Amino acid sequence: MKIRIGSIGLGRLGYEHAKNLAYFIQGAELAALCDIDAERLRSVSAELGVKKTYSGFAKMCSDPDIDAVTIVSPSAFHTEHIRIALDSGKHVFVEKPLDVTVEKCREAERIVEAHPDKVFMIGFMRRYDHSYRKAKEKIDNGDIGRIILIRSYTQDPVSAIESTLKFAPNSGGQFLDMSVHDADLFRWFTGGQRPRKLWAIGGCFAYPQYRDWNDGDNVSALIQYEDETMAFLFAGRAAAHGSNVETEIIGTKGALRIGAVGTDSLLEVMSEHGVCRECYGDFVARWHDAYIAELTEFVRCIQEGRKADVTVYDGTAALETVYRCKYSFERGEMVSFRD
Amino acid sequence: MKIRIGSIGLGRLGYEHAKNLAYFIQGAELAALCDIDAERLRSVSAELGVKKTYSGFAKMCSDPDIDAVTIVSPSAFHTEHIRIALDSGKHVFVEKPLDVTVEKCREAERIVEAHPDKVFMIGFMRRYDHSYRKAKEKIDNGDIGRIILIRSYTQDPVSAIESTLKFAPNSGGQFLDMSVHDADLFRWFTGGQRPRKLWAIGGCFAYPQYRDWNDGDNVSALIQYEDETMAFLFAGRAAAHGSNVETEIIGTKGALRIGAVGTDSLLEVMSEHGVCRECYGDFVARWHDAYIAELTEFVRCIQEGRKADVTVYDGTAALETVYRCKYSFERGEMVSFRD
Amino acid sequence: MKIRIGSIGLGRLGYEHAKNLAYFIQGAELAALCDIDAERLRSVSAELGVKKTYSGFAKMCSDPDIDAVTIVSPSAFHTEHIRIALDSGKHVFVEKPLDVTVEKCREAERIVEAHPDKVFMIGFMRRYDHSYRKAKEKIDNGDIGRIILIRSYTQDPVSAIESTLKFAPNSGGQFLDMSVHDADLFRWFTGGQRPRKLWAIGGCFAYPQYRDWNDGDNVSALIQYEDETMAFLFAGRAAAHGSNVETEIIGTKGALRIGAVGTDSLLEVMSEHGVCRECYGDFVARWHDAYIAELTEFVRCIQEGRKADVTVYDGTAALETVYRCKYSFERGEMVSFRD
Amino acid sequence: MKIRIGSIGLGRLGYEHAKNLAYFIQGAELAALCDIDAERLRSVSAELGVKKTYSGFAKMCSDPDIDAVTIVSPSAFHTEHIRIALDSGKHVFVEKPLDVTVEKCREAERIVEAHPDKVFMIGFMRRYDHSYRKAKEKIDNGDIGRIILIRSYTQDPVSAIESTLKFAPNSGGQFLDMSVHDADLFRWFTGGQRPRKLWAIGGCFAYPQYRDWNDGDNVSALIQYEDETMAFLFAGRAAAHGSNVETEIIGTKGALRIGAVGTDSLLEVMSEHGVCRECYGDFVARWHDAYIAELTEFVRCIQEGRKADVTVYDGTAALETVYRCKYSFERGEMVSFRD
Repeated sequence: MKIRIGSIGLGRLGYEHAKNLAYFIQGAELAALCDIDAERLRSVSAELGVKKTYSGFAKMCSDPDIDAVTIVSPSAFHTEHIRIALDSGKHVFVEKPLDVTVEKCREAERIVEAHPDKVFMIGFMRRYDHSYRKAKEKIDNGDIGRIILIRSYTQDPVSAIESTLKFAPNSGGQFLDMSVHDADLFRWFTGGQRPRKLWAIGGCFAYPQYRDWNDGDNVSALIQYEDETMAFLFAGRAAAHGSNVETEIIGTKGALRIGAVGTDSLLEVMSEHGVCRECYGDFVARWHDAYIAELTEFVRCIQEGRKADVTVYDGTAALETVYRCKYSFERGEMVSFRD
Repeated sequence: MKIRIGSIGLGRLGYEHAKNLAYFIQGAELAALCDIDAERLRSVSAELGVKKTYSGFAKMCSDPDIDAVTIVSPSAFHTEHIRIALDSGKHVFVEKPLDVTVEKCREAERIVEAHPDKVFMIGFMRRYDHSYRKAKEKIDNGDIGRIILIRSYTQDPVSAIESTLKFAPNSGGQFLDMSVHDADLFRWFTGGQRPRKLWAIGGCFAYPQYRDWNDGDNVSALIQYEDETMAFLFAGRAAAHGSNVETEIIGTKGALRIGAVGTDSLLEVMSEHGVCRECYGDFVARWHDAYIAELTEFVRCIQEGRKADVTVYDGTAALETVYRCKYSFERGEMVSFRD
Repeated sequence: MKIRIGSIGLGRLGYEHAKNLAYFIQGAELAALCDIDAERLRSVSAELGVKKTYSGFAKMCSDPDIDAVTIVSPSAFHTEHIRIALDSGKHVFVEKPLDVTVEKCREAERIVEAHPDKVFMIGFMRRYDHSYRKAKEKIDNGDIGRIILIRSYTQDPVSAIESTLKFAPNSGGQFLDMSVHDADLFRWFTGGQRPRKLWAIGGCFAYPQYRDWNDGDNVSALIQYEDETMAFLFAGRAAAHGSNVETEIIGTKGALRIGAVGTDSLLEVMSEHGVCRECYGDFVARWHDAYIAELTEFVRCIQEGRKADVTVYDGTAALETVYRCKYSFERGEMVSFRD
Repeated sequence: MKIRIGSIGLGRLGYEHAKNLAYFIQGAELAALCDIDAERLRSVSAELGVKKTYSGFAKMCSDPDIDAVTIVSPSAFHTEHIRIALDSGKHVFVEKPLDVTVEKCREAERIVEAHPDKVFMIGFMRRYDHSYRKAKEKIDNGDIGRIILIRSYTQDPVSAIESTLKFAPNSGGQFLDMSVHDADLFRWFTGGQRPRKLWAIGGCFAYPQYRDWNDGDNVSALIQYEDETMAFLFAGRAAAHGSNVETEIIGTKGALRIGAVGTDSLLEVMSEHGVCRECYGDFVARWHDAYIAELTEFVRCIQEGRKADVTVYDGTAALETVYRCKYSFERGEMVSFRD
């Protein structure tokens, strides 16, 4: 039985999810689309052959032909949309971050708890990436011993800087928009460790306009977890070599690296520049398979009456971490979590 | 409109294609399965939810509900199956090699020519691999100048040696079974160059039983093309590090390598063994996406009334090359193509 | 004219320097050795064919046949030994760190300033490593634009842990002993930027005995420089894969990595562990050429009447940085440099 | 006691050896230089501080102050120079190839045999390279089982093409000049296996002038050894990415690669070209340490009254192999060694 899915939000990633639902997710049918931009809604639904379109999310959620929704609306609307969807009896997949404040995340937790029969899942797609899964297995298997340090980079390509700058004022800032993925990885790899203290810094190294948004174009944070595990994250907006997400986990018995080479294929090019590997052009190219894998898991959970591994609490935990990074960065102070 | 496909042959790769058709190929429906092993037929059709099963290929081809067939039967039956399918009005996708002798390949050519309205395609899946396609684009773009040497390795993992040995007597030998892929790459990358001379050698380095089949466990060949382009191929049956296919194209202005690192993910492991990248476990893992891409292209050709890029002549050319390698290896002589 | 050198300290690195002076440094002659361990002094001087030996450093410095000294004594004696040597009219090469407190480093500065005619140099050998020099050139050439983040790891192999633990109580701790190299790289690559704030953390992940020395077996620090450049350092004592020093410099126009692969040769090994590169077994193997290069430079400075690029102020700056890391680590507090 | 060495030939490599003898070879003293170019002789001897110079080799060999000679004269003079030197009582280090015909190599063998008290060594410096030595150790240790295939590339950088073309008419051709190194590696790694058959091909892909010299700018050969071991060699004159020597040894239990990455440092550069490693600029940069190691070994053999591992028979064997490659290439025929 196909799971009929309505999707809200047709930005870059919303479009990607819609396309995946239309073509690549086994057991799913893209039944409806919702967006406030009527023209965008019309063209994408035509392209993907989706018959039903909605300008209002509540309206879409009242459609009895829809079993589940994927929420790719602006982050600040997430909790509201989660409430509407769950109250309408729909399963929910929501993009990260869960929302933009810890309070709203906690509210989302209560809403999800009130609908224990529904599947709820957050788009931490790195957890569904082949390389990251292999790393997780090795860690859980004890291959690298106890984790000492996790380092994670999220770098966007300079080729995308124009659209990045346009999106920046509403993105929530680098920590909420990008580093939330790294924060979730820290939680996932450490088996749920909680931060004790953190310090975040950064600056406007190439794009002074970020100063107007109280943000930096490149930022980093050092986090100490309660069991003394160390984590370092870095987010940058203008990598010359492409879209680069790289994570290293150093343990007492070994270490793992994901994406240290960071190419998008098995190709090496020998030229006057040396021996070169080309990187992913953008995040969609990097995570294409993981995006499919996560929505496939969402659909399977519904079909099999299971809960997803990624919970609403993961969403809150990651948001809380990066929110405090943001706070630390803005105040120039170290932040303790027991405050 | 879905293209309804019947598939013959449920060996390792036949099963893989069937599964892909059932789940991953947009626009395709796996409508029927055919195999002489009744038990295998029953279990796979049950697993994949295929309603129609046939023990005879002609019978399946007379089914009007089927639009196209995928032929994954033993190589020596290919031409016969191609004839039956095309004469029954079905589009044809056939696994490599086209057949096991040059004469039968030429016969296949005439059959295909007699059905110009049907899509015909050979399973040279490397042409549909992301890394190989990027290489091809760069070559066609002139990035590496004129091709000087192509080197291509096809190595199976030692972990598969048991099943390899079982399959060996009916495989056609290393050159026909494995190197045919490399021979096709040479043709593809050089834009259709024809061999002038070749010399093939090899031996039984670890598995003496290959001697009984007039074969070696590891073989290689040096080929001189008519325009003096050089090509070197190597096929091995027992690589310690896994399934490894690696191709290098050296040109006058640069060079390209595909799979020189040959890992199946972006993961690096640091341990007492150094800094290690893990390889693909088997060929299915390596070519999963390419298998999907080639069948997707097959289906699209049918839907759009196009011909495939891979032609029956490519099948003959590759077979002819490796057949002469086999001849050269068996006789211990150099072979000229103008003989 | 050969520069006649007397060397004090015959520990692991002292022995290495002595051997290099005896065999590999053009223009140098190892004229005398000094150590408090009479037996060690006897055996090394015999091995290296050094005729003069001293148990007291002042005595060696009063020898008119000696032009220069290399000081590889325990760090806490450095300033005293610098004073004795310079006051005796000898040129001075001193191992890092300059000394173990900022006050003593400042004292060393005044001593060096009082002898402007003498060559004075500190053993920051990474500055003389081929790979690091290439990186420095590219940075100075503007290839990577403005520096955003420098990340530097210093990892000792687990195979050396026994001797490491023995040496630990007198090493000054991880920050002073290991990270001082990274701190110097930050200074060198940024062209002399000064830290504004830092925060250091760590723990005893595998070797609880470090707790007795108020230290950790793995530590890290995040440093914010005055121009907002970010730096992250990590020091670990028990890497499974060998001796690993790795530095990354991320700039606005590109990035550089040194030692990310970290092998000691151009060899790759394919085995059941995958495709592996072996790492350096220890720091002596990693820095052999750099140790020779730095002493060669020391000797040339003397011969040519030049000053070394590495100054006493570099020694103070690096020590100050890591000393505050140590302070931050011990107190669990962030440290500001304007305090 | 210093070994006093006279060196003949001040071309590119002759100069390099002279410089190494002057500065870097422990226990050696560059006592005299010999060259027919008086101006070159004058300038190099001035630069290196060599007091004695000779225009005639016999004259230099009659100098009682000289213990040994390094012969870096044109290859066709090697046997003659070996005779003069040994008859004069000097130890001999001769550059590869031993000479340019098999007959002359056999003559050299007889001369060397007639002076069993002298050290005689050929400049197969790859045997003294750190990476190659590690590979050899692993092979001899049985790590990769029985050798199946050795592949070896010798590529010169396009940046050197001008000087390469000037030198080409007297170089002996690609096989004798370049591939002789690969042929020696095959012999060394296989423990002295002898070729049974070979076939060599090639062409003028970028530089038609090689046709005038009955040569190609890029050539290759496939060799079958008596125990069925396979070897493939490739020599190219115009690699875009620099000086590249790469060797792979595939065995029944594992495989080894040397120089597959081929960089001259541990530096990686991230830029719009991807993640790049820079290659060696020329052969001198690549083999600097090996050149020093081989001459150091030569000197030690003299000092310790030992014979070198590389024998005159190795010189003949390698020359014979590449000479037959040359013959095969010129005739377009396969060559059997039992002819």
